[in-house]
Amino acid sequence: MDLYKSLIERRSIRKYKDKEISNDLLDKIMIAAKHAPTAMNKQNLKFYAVKKSDWIKRLEEAIKVDMDNNEYSLRDAKAFILVASPKDSLLADADTACAMMNMFYAAMSEGIGSCWINQLRHVSDKAHVRPLLDEIDFPGDYQCLGMVALGYPDEVPEHKERIEERFIIE
Amino acid sequence: MDLYKSLIERRSIRKYKDKEISNDLLDKIMIAAKHAPTAMNKQNLKFYAVKKSDWIKRLEEAIKVDMDNNEYSLRDAKAFILVASPKDSLLADADTACAMMNMFYAAMSEGIGSCWINQLRHVSDKAHVRPLLDEIDFPGDYQCLGMVALGYPDEVPEHKERIEERFIIE
Repeated sequence: MDLYKSLIERRSIRKYKDKEISNDLLDKIMIAAKHAPTAMNKQNLKFYAVKKSDWIKRLEEAIKVDMDNNEYSLRDAKAFILVASPKDSLLADADTACAMMNMFYAAMSEGIGSCWINQLRHVSDKAHVRPLLDEIDFPGDYQCLGMVALGYPDEVPEHKERIEERFIIE
Repeated sequence: MDLYKSLIERRSIRKYKDKEISNDLLDKIMIAAKHAPTAMNKQNLKFYAVKKSDWIKRLEEAIKVDMDNNEYSLRDAKAFILVASPKDSLLADADTACAMMNMFYAAMSEGIGSCWINQLRHVSDKAHVRPLLDEIDFPGDYQCLGMVALGYPDEVPEHKERIEERFIIE
């Protein structure tokens, strides 16, 4: 798949087919994440790929309770990759985003759709979510500032015009 | 250029040839930036490409003074693209990083090297840097959490092993 074209054509995918993602592909996506830049090359992130449907269902329920939002849904994504960053890392948001972008594109290169799930940033340490993170050995001194939902696309999002301004100063 | 290979092989480039980057390519890189995702699709960034060598030299001097670091150098990059984000945007760090990643890859697709320059986050509003931002009409209620240095590569950085851990939970 062509690099520049991918940058322009990537879209968030929120509807997925009922088709499992292999461990090899999850690993390939995490290897791309490892190759994203980190501030001062600290390389202090960890990546957790989960495809246990039981755990995912329980996570969805826990987020609902901890966010007090009964409408919340993780939809029908087939796997998630959680990015763990040290709680005391000043540039964790930027580092997480760089890793997320590499995962979006690695997934795209394999025909897998992806979407940024942001809610864990607010509830990682709340009463219902935290035990689920403990179950997968997600360390207590790490936070989750982003997780990628993954699945084979069951939608083709339309192209929307982008509005951000750009200037060339000569 | 192949997408997945690019994700693995991208490196920061810090030595550049004395060769100008065309306006068309700067614009192409900013168009890629516009297509990066933003939190809740707010699309509230602005992009400023500068290749005036005089302005760049003065920016370097201003950063030196405002950071009180006489060793600071912007090296010999031929152009910079500044990402402007609203100061009141809660997810500006993540949004900026996503745009930066798209610019790194757009540059790479054109054989242009790039590197994240982070110092403006600390000095955008200081006495010597701010007037230079005013000169290019960078708005006062925006901050610069990242800027890309660009130039044709004059080095081939070695591949270093990545250490970040990854886990698959089945």
